[in-house]
Amino acid sequence: MASRAGGASSQLLLSWPNPTSPQAQKATRLGSMPARLAIAQINPTVGDLVGNCGLITEWAAKAHKLGGQVILFPQGALTGHPLESLAHNPAFQRAANQQLTKLTQTLQQQGMGGAHIVVGALGTTNQGQPTNTAAVLHQGKVQYLHASFRFQGESVPAADHQAAIFQSHGSSFGLAIGDELSPPPGAASQLANQSLDALLVLGGSPFAPNEMQRLHQAAAAQASQLQAPVAFGNLIGGQDDLVFPGGSFVMAPNNSLVSQAGQFHQELIFWHAGDLSAKPTLPMPETEAIYHAITLGLADYAKKNGFSKAIVGLSGGIDSALVAALAADALGPKNVLAVAMPSQHSSPNSLDDAADQAKRLGLGFRSVPIQDMVDQFQARLDLTGVAAENIQARVRGMVLMAISNLEGHLVLATGNKSELAVGYSTIYGDAVGGYAPIKDVLKTQVWELARWRNAFANERGEPEPIPEAVIVKPPSAELRPNQLDSDTLPDYEVLDPVLAQRLDQGASRSALLAAGHDPKVVDLALRSIDQAEWKRRQYPLGPRVSFGPLEGDRRRPITNRWQELQP
Amino acid sequence: MASRAGGASSQLLLSWPNPTSPQAQKATRLGSMPARLAIAQINPTVGDLVGNCGLITEWAAKAHKLGGQVILFPQGALTGHPLESLAHNPAFQRAANQQLTKLTQTLQQQGMGGAHIVVGALGTTNQGQPTNTAAVLHQGKVQYLHASFRFQGESVPAADHQAAIFQSHGSSFGLAIGDELSPPPGAASQLANQSLDALLVLGGSPFAPNEMQRLHQAAAAQASQLQAPVAFGNLIGGQDDLVFPGGSFVMAPNNSLVSQAGQFHQELIFWHAGDLSAKPTLPMPETEAIYHAITLGLADYAKKNGFSKAIVGLSGGIDSALVAALAADALGPKNVLAVAMPSQHSSPNSLDDAADQAKRLGLGFRSVPIQDMVDQFQARLDLTGVAAENIQARVRGMVLMAISNLEGHLVLATGNKSELAVGYSTIYGDAVGGYAPIKDVLKTQVWELARWRNAFANERGEPEPIPEAVIVKPPSAELRPNQLDSDTLPDYEVLDPVLAQRLDQGASRSALLAAGHDPKVVDLALRSIDQAEWKRRQYPLGPRVSFGPLEGDRRRPITNRWQELQP
Repeated sequence: MASRAGGASSQLLLSWPNPTSPQAQKATRLGSMPARLAIAQINPTVGDLVGNCGLITEWAAKAHKLGGQVILFPQGALTGHPLESLAHNPAFQRAANQQLTKLTQTLQQQGMGGAHIVVGALGTTNQGQPTNTAAVLHQGKVQYLHASFRFQGESVPAADHQAAIFQSHGSSFGLAIGDELSPPPGAASQLANQSLDALLVLGGSPFAPNEMQRLHQAAAAQASQLQAPVAFGNLIGGQDDLVFPGGSFVMAPNNSLVSQAGQFHQELIFWHAGDLSAKPTLPMPETEAIYHAITLGLADYAKKNGFSKAIVGLSGGIDSALVAALAADALGPKNVLAVAMPSQHSSPNSLDDAADQAKRLGLGFRSVPIQDMVDQFQARLDLTGVAAENIQARVRGMVLMAISNLEGHLVLATGNKSELAVGYSTIYGDAVGGYAPIKDVLKTQVWELARWRNAFANERGEPEPIPEAVIVKPPSAELRPNQLDSDTLPDYEVLDPVLAQRLDQGASRSALLAAGHDPKVVDLALRSIDQAEWKRRQYPLGPRVSFGPLEGDRRRPITNRWQELQP
Repeated sequence: MASRAGGASSQLLLSWPNPTSPQAQKATRLGSMPARLAIAQINPTVGDLVGNCGLITEWAAKAHKLGGQVILFPQGALTGHPLESLAHNPAFQRAANQQLTKLTQTLQQQGMGGAHIVVGALGTTNQGQPTNTAAVLHQGKVQYLHASFRFQGESVPAADHQAAIFQSHGSSFGLAIGDELSPPPGAASQLANQSLDALLVLGGSPFAPNEMQRLHQAAAAQASQLQAPVAFGNLIGGQDDLVFPGGSFVMAPNNSLVSQAGQFHQELIFWHAGDLSAKPTLPMPETEAIYHAITLGLADYAKKNGFSKAIVGLSGGIDSALVAALAADALGPKNVLAVAMPSQHSSPNSLDDAADQAKRLGLGFRSVPIQDMVDQFQARLDLTGVAAENIQARVRGMVLMAISNLEGHLVLATGNKSELAVGYSTIYGDAVGGYAPIKDVLKTQVWELARWRNAFANERGEPEPIPEAVIVKPPSAELRPNQLDSDTLPDYEVLDPVLAQRLDQGASRSALLAAGHDPKVVDLALRSIDQAEWKRRQYPLGPRVSFGPLEGDRRRPITNRWQELQP
């Protein structure tokens, strides 16, 4: 989607708002117009200092041309975010520091020295510890540096826990970074005494359901406390398992949004210090937001890692159908190769459904029957039971990897969160891949996303990408005759609410039972989540789109005899 | 190996040492003997509250029978360590608390109420945050609880940063947990004013080269500051990627070890408050210690996860030869199945070498030629180049997984650290497995370990487990005709020092060049380490035995455009 910068902002240039806040009235009385703030919601790449510097310069120039006097970039704009171990590399720390100086000079040379340009950068303490830093660039100099109190979850020995404030065009701005949206009490009370025109927050908040709402609430609380608007500039883009949604905004102390960017694309928004008139905004429905988050995560993982095309095994089932649709939207249908790999247990219409879908989406399509390869293993090893089932999934994984080795595709794994939670997947089989788009999507959500995507196509008068037959057929791995998921697992309509409550809310066994879930399903879920951990550790990464991803911020031990059996 | 508890300690019972410290002389003057301390170096299992409770009771009874009045167990003795996400589970927190009460009652019922038994347990703050806790059990009650200032790297809002002290039999003991070996300045100065008879440290220090030396130095510094001995009770055993080596000790303020346990086995050691006479100890050579650490890590991973047997693909090369020897030592040779999987590119003597080794070790042995399976993929997909090489490794991986699915083996991956660092491995091929014993061992160390194991066999008059032919042959993946590792990679004697300096010491490119390494090798290493990250994320876990494991405490981003090219 194109940036909305052009239209919206030139309109703003023609209609300066009435300054309504006391601070703005003060500035007006002093004979100066209040400062015009631009928020540049950009998509930097981790480690790409030169590229990110160019991106900042490009968006600063756009913002400056449209009248931005204070230009706010997000957390880690110069370095990418999060840096993880890279933040601790002294050579990278030095290079990031040098690049910040270059950026400052470039902005001055390109005539933007008069603006105050606020960028997220990487600082270093005297002990070499990295700090999340906000740099205010002005007149060719790094005018001000503010280091965060926390960095990647570690606390940082901040030189001072002082509030950070700078002046521009008669307006006064406080600075905060990321999870400092609520600064420590000391800094907050200092800020509250400064009659700020706004608190500028360099955001780096990844996507999660209702995250926008949470950010709005936190900002409103902060704005009310400071009696000044809070401007939140967020990142957009994918970085490994994180997706930053954007959605930058300015929140007034009266709990109204006075400026708001879109989600999942780069954008420039503007706001005049003192403008407290609410702008109408529409929150994005959750299913739509998840679809866009995954698409962006996949697109960026591919692009930032040098892949122009992807390959997906299309079974005729709903999981691979959704992944194929997501891949087509992320990379363009011509860059997606769908491979059907029928075996003797594939149902007669699976191949037709796969071919149908590839045609609807305009994907590349090949069929590679696997029975002859499976038979060789069968004959050599005399396989039965699970071993015989798994070999089919593994031959398929090998076929995809072989084509990828020959032609350079990114291999997409098609497992969903329900399967991964309970270990209903074949390691080195359907689990192969570089990226797993729906690993944090429950099976019932897979159906919702598929229906949303079809409805979206209907709205635009396009053919539905996912055949109805694929959506309504009973789930099956098709690894033995007439196999259905329901032979082994509870219905997903029964299982998924248990998984959601456990993983998203950390519900205990007793809370799950109290909520009325079937004790057998609860115990199956709790036991399986722990037992499948070893497989999940070897699963490809994918975008986090829930409150409780299976690989959360805290690692689950593999070796673990605990069983939650008490009521 | 059997515990040394029986012999050593009954001897100690017969010869009480002369109390030489001022505190002990004071106690003697007061008419009481100074307290007798036992350190129980045990191997608990994460989450196994009932099992660990039994283990503590068993070892407390042994110690008590042998005269122990204060009995020190390590960090997390009751819960296992580290708990990772499990520590945040409220149901587990409650169960751990209940089990602590049961343990206290059991000890009292079994006649040990008069002793002070110090165990690592799990505490919870009022906000539900977990804390590393030392519980002092006495007369059927939890007499005292001391919470650590830090937990799993996160800082804990400790109720008080007071020093923790208790009295037993006229002696006075301070408490510290894990990385509190150096308590915060406030607590340390309080402890220093208390005329302690000893500081008891509940240790949970995993294996690393020279870790014992580091612990001894830290303890000596602390002992000197407190003018009291430091007793360090360490865990032993494997937990996922960590191996706890044991090596519990008592360090006197004069920098001499006055009691010392062995490494890599459960053991009970004793010490009398006041005894400052040095006991001679011999440090274990590093290669031997690494061999034992891996063996223990593998044995415990198998046992604690319910595997009695393992399977390994034996190629005739040194990596799989070493892994087979380690597995035989960890699980017993009869529980290890070695599978040779020759292809058309296997050298004529590879199969013979594999069979020879299996025979020397007494392993189960099968040969599964793979060419017919490889040919099917070849024919169907017209494979060339890397795709053709990888398919052989992947067919082998599938054969091992299929046998494991049929017969229940733990599959061992045989990749070494040099290969994994530079990405010289086939994902879903030689990378398959549940545990990767030598993933943190550089290729040159693989040879050292093999030679050490053969020398150890020689000393005991046993046949060398690893054929000399396997040690001296040039490394090859044997995936194409006459292939050698040196076609693609620098000699390991040249590559490994670069990898070691980079990974263990975090050396920059300029430091590596200044050390005289070939710039081409340096740049290959730095580039490859980053590029191979995505494959390593999907690699099985294995024991950390170096300062700089490839999966360290800080995650390396996969999406990362940084290249360290500056001098």
